[in-house]
Amino acid sequence: MSAADTHSLLQKNLPGVDFSTDEHALQHYGRDWTRFHTPRPEAVLWPRSTGQVQQIVRLANKLGKSLVPSGGRTGYSAGAVATRGEWVVTLEKMRAIGEFDPIDRQVEVEAGVITEQLQEFARQQGLFYPVDFASAGSSQIGGNIATNAGGIRVLRYGMTREYVAGLTVVTGAGEILHLNNGLVKNATGLDLRHLMVGSEGVLGIITEARMRLIDPPPPQSVMLLALSSLDAVMRVFALARARVKLSSFELFSHKALTHVRSQRELPAPFEANSPWYVVLEFDNAGPADEEAALAFFEAGMEAGDIEDGIFSQSVEQARQLWQYREGISESIAHLTPYKNDIAVRVSKVPEFMRRLEEILQASYPDFETVWFGHIGDGNLHLNILKPENLSVADFQRRCEAVSADVYGLIESLQGSISAEHGVGLLKKPYLPHSRSQAEIALMRQIKAAFDPNGVLNPGKMLPDQTNT
Amino acid sequence: MSAADTHSLLQKNLPGVDFSTDEHALQHYGRDWTRFHTPRPEAVLWPRSTGQVQQIVRLANKLGKSLVPSGGRTGYSAGAVATRGEWVVTLEKMRAIGEFDPIDRQVEVEAGVITEQLQEFARQQGLFYPVDFASAGSSQIGGNIATNAGGIRVLRYGMTREYVAGLTVVTGAGEILHLNNGLVKNATGLDLRHLMVGSEGVLGIITEARMRLIDPPPPQSVMLLALSSLDAVMRVFALARARVKLSSFELFSHKALTHVRSQRELPAPFEANSPWYVVLEFDNAGPADEEAALAFFEAGMEAGDIEDGIFSQSVEQARQLWQYREGISESIAHLTPYKNDIAVRVSKVPEFMRRLEEILQASYPDFETVWFGHIGDGNLHLNILKPENLSVADFQRRCEAVSADVYGLIESLQGSISAEHGVGLLKKPYLPHSRSQAEIALMRQIKAAFDPNGVLNPGKMLPDQTNT
Repeated sequence: MSAADTHSLLQKNLPGVDFSTDEHALQHYGRDWTRFHTPRPEAVLWPRSTGQVQQIVRLANKLGKSLVPSGGRTGYSAGAVATRGEWVVTLEKMRAIGEFDPIDRQVEVEAGVITEQLQEFARQQGLFYPVDFASAGSSQIGGNIATNAGGIRVLRYGMTREYVAGLTVVTGAGEILHLNNGLVKNATGLDLRHLMVGSEGVLGIITEARMRLIDPPPPQSVMLLALSSLDAVMRVFALARARVKLSSFELFSHKALTHVRSQRELPAPFEANSPWYVVLEFDNAGPADEEAALAFFEAGMEAGDIEDGIFSQSVEQARQLWQYREGISESIAHLTPYKNDIAVRVSKVPEFMRRLEEILQASYPDFETVWFGHIGDGNLHLNILKPENLSVADFQRRCEAVSADVYGLIESLQGSISAEHGVGLLKKPYLPHSRSQAEIALMRQIKAAFDPNGVLNPGKMLPDQTNT
Repeated sequence: MSAADTHSLLQKNLPGVDFSTDEHALQHYGRDWTRFHTPRPEAVLWPRSTGQVQQIVRLANKLGKSLVPSGGRTGYSAGAVATRGEWVVTLEKMRAIGEFDPIDRQVEVEAGVITEQLQEFARQQGLFYPVDFASAGSSQIGGNIATNAGGIRVLRYGMTREYVAGLTVVTGAGEILHLNNGLVKNATGLDLRHLMVGSEGVLGIITEARMRLIDPPPPQSVMLLALSSLDAVMRVFALARARVKLSSFELFSHKALTHVRSQRELPAPFEANSPWYVVLEFDNAGPADEEAALAFFEAGMEAGDIEDGIFSQSVEQARQLWQYREGISESIAHLTPYKNDIAVRVSKVPEFMRRLEEILQASYPDFETVWFGHIGDGNLHLNILKPENLSVADFQRRCEAVSADVYGLIESLQGSISAEHGVGLLKKPYLPHSRSQAEIALMRQIKAAFDPNGVLNPGKMLPDQTNT
């Protein structure tokens, strides 16, 4: 359909809904933070209400159009890219913060509210919205819920799921559902709210949510520790968890440190190099907490697991120490990293990393790998950097071969091929490593129940079916 | 089918699976804690493994038999009763506690493990399983998960859902699913684990689970407070939540106190009567906590909201104070209580209770009502006691008329007609007051995906369909 035809069709059928068929808009709204696909949507639509979203979904059903629900488009799995002439439905004009009740400690938000906006709103009420990650300044609550976003405080506060007290959803069939309505307890049949969390836009479009806010934590302190081995990392994690009240426990390798120092021009934190570093953040409400933290540190030194360390003495120094961890992703972005977002049970992390190192050393000794991750959640980000002498295409091909080995190992350890980035288009071929055929068949049937004509995010999440 | 025919059919088709067609067993295993239905199962089966459960489900599909999954049968909604010649599949011989990993803090349990057994196991590991309620000595983990059990500490620790890190399930189609495998983060498509939690045996039979254990809380203290009005209750709740670290905040009415005192021969806790009482439990790790609690109490007294109070000075006294709340259900059991387990958002509790009192006073002035509940969760148990001069049948009929009014009010406040007791058979007709027709239609389709021949718990949860 020509842009002019699309234009008049939308104008006629969706009066009052903003849209664009402008090439620049199509390019901009047709992609997320992945760069493996060419955006090719037919139109971008900006609904301003749940009712307008319903009109759009109903029209798509009538005309056989496909829709791509679109949040902040900060995803790493191509869940929000539009490559097949879809209509992108962006929620960015639905960003009102609605009713807040201090007794319920719940706030109504439209799906387009930015994560940071909600964090700031909570602060203004003397409360706390704990979900936080690098893209908090541009990711949207609707997208966070659709991907069950995690981040750097999952260890203490859990994923986005924990904070969803209610949802308004337009299903693929065009029905408006009001799920759970902010109730703490509600044992009235199947919990469709929890089914929507992490559903990546294949069942319905989340238009509004009631988010739960919590008490703010006490003042936090930060330690940056240098650790002698991977086994030491796990022992120090167990020790820290027993001695202090942890909010974060983030691991990175010496290579990761090298990249972030170079890019941000940061000083070496310690005189000697160590193989592993950890940033941990924990409650420091007074002298008792301070003493416990020092006792933890001394115990780790005595055991030979901690080689050196820095204990933040101010909010400013805490912020500086976090830089060594937070800057990693950005510092390797120009090196064409092939990203793996993988998880195993926490207890299996050492075995997993050892076996993974063996695979990488044996088959791909020329690849540089940069490790970092949320060790307290068993979630590791394995970044493979492109050797200079390899073309991007060859690099990608070889990385996909690496993935086959990595995912085979993950399957044998009952791990996850996508810990917090979702499935989208990129991880779809690998889903059977983490989910059985019976599970995938059930997902398809659930998809068909919510979206009988398959108008929502077609081709995402569920592996392509082969004829048998 | 005669008992002898059933006997030989089971013996032939399920070698190695224990079963009984004995009348006493049928009566015993065919009912839960409700007493509104006559048990009439055809057989009781005792599988000892997930594989045996699968054999049973496959045979039921082949022969067109119906199955009732059966835990501790402590439910209040008739979700586990068998009235139509079903086979009761009791998990009580699957009560092994399996692998425990101290790093993951997860333990594998079979579905028949008793709640108290898991609480005790956690204690032995220096950890804590926080879900607790009156029937913890006989309820089973599988049943807790299938009903998303709540109880007295939801305010602090949430429902059973929070502690389910992995599930093994046999679907109605006879497929074995291993869901989530104990991962903290796993963004690989629709989360079927969360769909199973609270599914009341209509999608699959939960056979094993990986349960998450947590740090034990600091020492707890208890206060019993006498409060001047319902508005005072809400203000004292807000004050307590701001000043102390609450584990429980449990409300009951003066009538409830009268019944429990009479049945347990307890002394009057206070010299004067008050309309409402609250038991609260909170952290008391040292002098700072103690001072905060006293400051809270004094602030409540000064405001005129707290009329009197007792602060436990020992573990034994804490236990004694809890009796005034814990004994209520038992103390009214002989008075044929008609139980409602209802919830609204916490902020709507005062309005809800006022409007409910108006309904009861206007239409049913001869009914005695006993209120208690988990005020911090918005969950109230409204018990209507049978007047002496009314027959049981007439009482039930009139209570059902009350329910229509009560549920209408709940619907207008977007509340829940079953906060923690589930739907089962008893609440099924009322489900549309809490869930829309579109939601119920989706539930039916999900049920059909998991259980295409409808062998699992037929007639439960989903309202009967009328021909249109």
